[in-house]
Amino acid sequence: MARNYAGTSDYFGDDCLKRQYVLETLKKVFSLFGFEPLETPIIELKETLLGKTGGETNAQVFNWRQGNPETGEDIGLRFDQTVPLARVMAQYAKTLEPKMPYKRYTIGPVFRAEKPQAGRLRQFTQMDIDTVGTKSVLADAEVIALCIYALEKLGFSDFTIELNNRKILNGLAASIGLVGKEAISLMRGWDKLGKKSTQEIEEEFEETLGKEKAKKAILLTEKLIAIDGSSEIALNSVLKVSKETEGGVLETKSILNTLATLGIDPEKIKFNVLLARGLDYYTGPVFEMKVLEGGAGSLGGGGRFDNLIEALGGPSIPATGVSFGLERMTYVLDKLNLFPTELEKTKAFVTVFEPKSESSVAYAAKITSLLRKKKINTEMYTGCEKVGAQLAIANRKGIKYAIIAGPDEEKKGTVTIKNLSVGLSSGEKKDKEANQIEVPLAELKDNLSSI
Amino acid sequence: MARNYAGTSDYFGDDCLKRQYVLETLKKVFSLFGFEPLETPIIELKETLLGKTGGETNAQVFNWRQGNPETGEDIGLRFDQTVPLARVMAQYAKTLEPKMPYKRYTIGPVFRAEKPQAGRLRQFTQMDIDTVGTKSVLADAEVIALCIYALEKLGFSDFTIELNNRKILNGLAASIGLVGKEAISLMRGWDKLGKKSTQEIEEEFEETLGKEKAKKAILLTEKLIAIDGSSEIALNSVLKVSKETEGGVLETKSILNTLATLGIDPEKIKFNVLLARGLDYYTGPVFEMKVLEGGAGSLGGGGRFDNLIEALGGPSIPATGVSFGLERMTYVLDKLNLFPTELEKTKAFVTVFEPKSESSVAYAAKITSLLRKKKINTEMYTGCEKVGAQLAIANRKGIKYAIIAGPDEEKKGTVTIKNLSVGLSSGEKKDKEANQIEVPLAELKDNLSSI
Repeated sequence: MARNYAGTSDYFGDDCLKRQYVLETLKKVFSLFGFEPLETPIIELKETLLGKTGGETNAQVFNWRQGNPETGEDIGLRFDQTVPLARVMAQYAKTLEPKMPYKRYTIGPVFRAEKPQAGRLRQFTQMDIDTVGTKSVLADAEVIALCIYALEKLGFSDFTIELNNRKILNGLAASIGLVGKEAISLMRGWDKLGKKSTQEIEEEFEETLGKEKAKKAILLTEKLIAIDGSSEIALNSVLKVSKETEGGVLETKSILNTLATLGIDPEKIKFNVLLARGLDYYTGPVFEMKVLEGGAGSLGGGGRFDNLIEALGGPSIPATGVSFGLERMTYVLDKLNLFPTELEKTKAFVTVFEPKSESSVAYAAKITSLLRKKKINTEMYTGCEKVGAQLAIANRKGIKYAIIAGPDEEKKGTVTIKNLSVGLSSGEKKDKEANQIEVPLAELKDNLSSI
Repeated sequence: MARNYAGTSDYFGDDCLKRQYVLETLKKVFSLFGFEPLETPIIELKETLLGKTGGETNAQVFNWRQGNPETGEDIGLRFDQTVPLARVMAQYAKTLEPKMPYKRYTIGPVFRAEKPQAGRLRQFTQMDIDTVGTKSVLADAEVIALCIYALEKLGFSDFTIELNNRKILNGLAASIGLVGKEAISLMRGWDKLGKKSTQEIEEEFEETLGKEKAKKAILLTEKLIAIDGSSEIALNSVLKVSKETEGGVLETKSILNTLATLGIDPEKIKFNVLLARGLDYYTGPVFEMKVLEGGAGSLGGGGRFDNLIEALGGPSIPATGVSFGLERMTYVLDKLNLFPTELEKTKAFVTVFEPKSESSVAYAAKITSLLRKKKINTEMYTGCEKVGAQLAIANRKGIKYAIIAGPDEEKKGTVTIKNLSVGLSSGEKKDKEANQIEVPLAELKDNLSSI
């Protein structure tokens, strides 16, 4: 039996249009914020993909030695958009450095050689924006402002950007003697707050940190959870912990200030001292988009990664950015019913009264041509069924209006518009005309939405 | 040294925007003609990709046995958009059959494991439309009408659709005793007319057909070249050759009639009895888009392939369509200077008068926010250089307007707009103001295009 590779998807009609809507909306927002597009290939050399990264990523790469001996280089499929960015920064350093900060967006499929699970695909689409080449928190603020603007543009209203800073997190961890891997373990635990029970997190701490340090971690966690109040209050409560937390607090305050001058509603951003975001590579501000409507939860997030591009084989260059996942975004928008009703779909289906008659085809073609001139997406029927069956086909395709015209209508220069989205109950069947009207050909367009 | 895989490309800024413009324009045309989107994965199972197709295709497939034992299926990258279509037609037969004719468009990268050459990439983008499930020439006419509309929409004016029919070609070949592979050899020779010398083609005929048949082929070719005049005259001159040519001529006439009723200028279509299009799989109408401006030549074409979907492992179902190549299309549009000047690029660059001053950043952020509210794509500077260097960066990025405002302007509530696209000759340097004006903040937008 024909099938697609497990962990990949086929998207038809409406589902495609929804995906396109998300892509187009975000692309416009990226452009509005001065990010320019970058398109890199799906295939990369294996040395680029595996670079200096750890073992866990390696196992996820679709990588192969090409069969064809003429092209016998080790290659693979990109598993994210950041590795190609690092490669581009190294390869085009001469062109890009004089343009720093380089602000690029990129959209496209990425691939993970994982066992597919619910919500975890082998091919999915990432939309990344990154500002490369500046340490300024202005760049971080801009990325966050963009996320807020994008979420509003997509129709979300009840959402918050949770903001924290790795310097604060590192300082807090250091204050109880945790650095490096142990600090990351602490943050991974914090990441799970709300998802796992306190007891489970405590057990995890004991496992990763040992009994004594786990005790300190639990005490610190409880202390931080107890902090209540505005972002300002929460920030001040950790300001004095160490030089490092102070740096993080000042950065966070500066970001909040810049966001206000950028006209962003302060209600939309909340400092959360326990927000960690698991990934090791963040070095400064981190944030997460939390959509509160309909239990949608986190829509992903981003942050600053000043050492990552170098670690991936690029030049030593700071960067900050965010990644939007198309599949998750589309799923949540759909669940919350936030897609516009009018996507770029076929609106009119022109039936052919008698598919074998030349004059019948000619009149249908004339109607079709007229509708398209009026910018109405129109399918003309090209099969050989009779009109009744044609209407059923149009209906199954989800097309709203069917246009019918026989020889009599042709003589009068009229057409019948039938609104297929109006279902008729069996009692109404006699009154078939309820969802259709006959109009002169020239008035076809004006009448499409009136029935 | 960091590098991309040979035969793949990185596209930056403007080049990306040009690609997006072509994609967006064609996508709108596809929708206008009632084609709905379909998105299939880039990875397909090896059995899908290699199916029943011949050896030549096999050698071109990026195919691998996945390294990870958990996911150990043989997979590969799609090398066109038709094989996935055949797979989809088989896999979703129950859903799609009641909606026939199924009209879908698809856009995305395809991969060929070939040695890269000039104009031949290992990753390139194809945009296909196909109507599946009808033998009617109405469907062929619709595809051709779409091509004409698309070419006009993209700004081409001097172009012709050359039209022929495989039935005519087969009938002509049969009339001199050539069928099957020999008929294809004849057509391949005709495909090369104008590109190769007559002598070269004659030599090729001798090689593929043998001396005697080659002589007949050459005589026939000369006779067909001699046919001169309108499509009507040319069609009638081959009408009576055989039952098969007659069928092809009638189909062609019917397509020309339908195109006329669809409002297409008959001047845009020309019957060319020698147009063959090399691919074996065409079964009916074939056509090619010939752009005459600037020696651009063929932009590709399409035709009917009633047996291909079954041959690829799908159901037995007729189809007709066309494939647009993004790279070739972009190249030709660029060469002919047909891209609109205003693509979705960054238009304004807001400088920060003193990157370390909070009030300076705040005023820049205010300006930025205002411009974005007015839907102007705006980058705010996020680095630490001084204003002069910032202007140089904006210039290198190709951004048209720089916005400058220091403390004095802030007090007055004004900004200076500088048009960076106006170069100043050394003599004009004293008159620096020529390409800049100071305006109140509120009038910023209105003045952007006036300088």
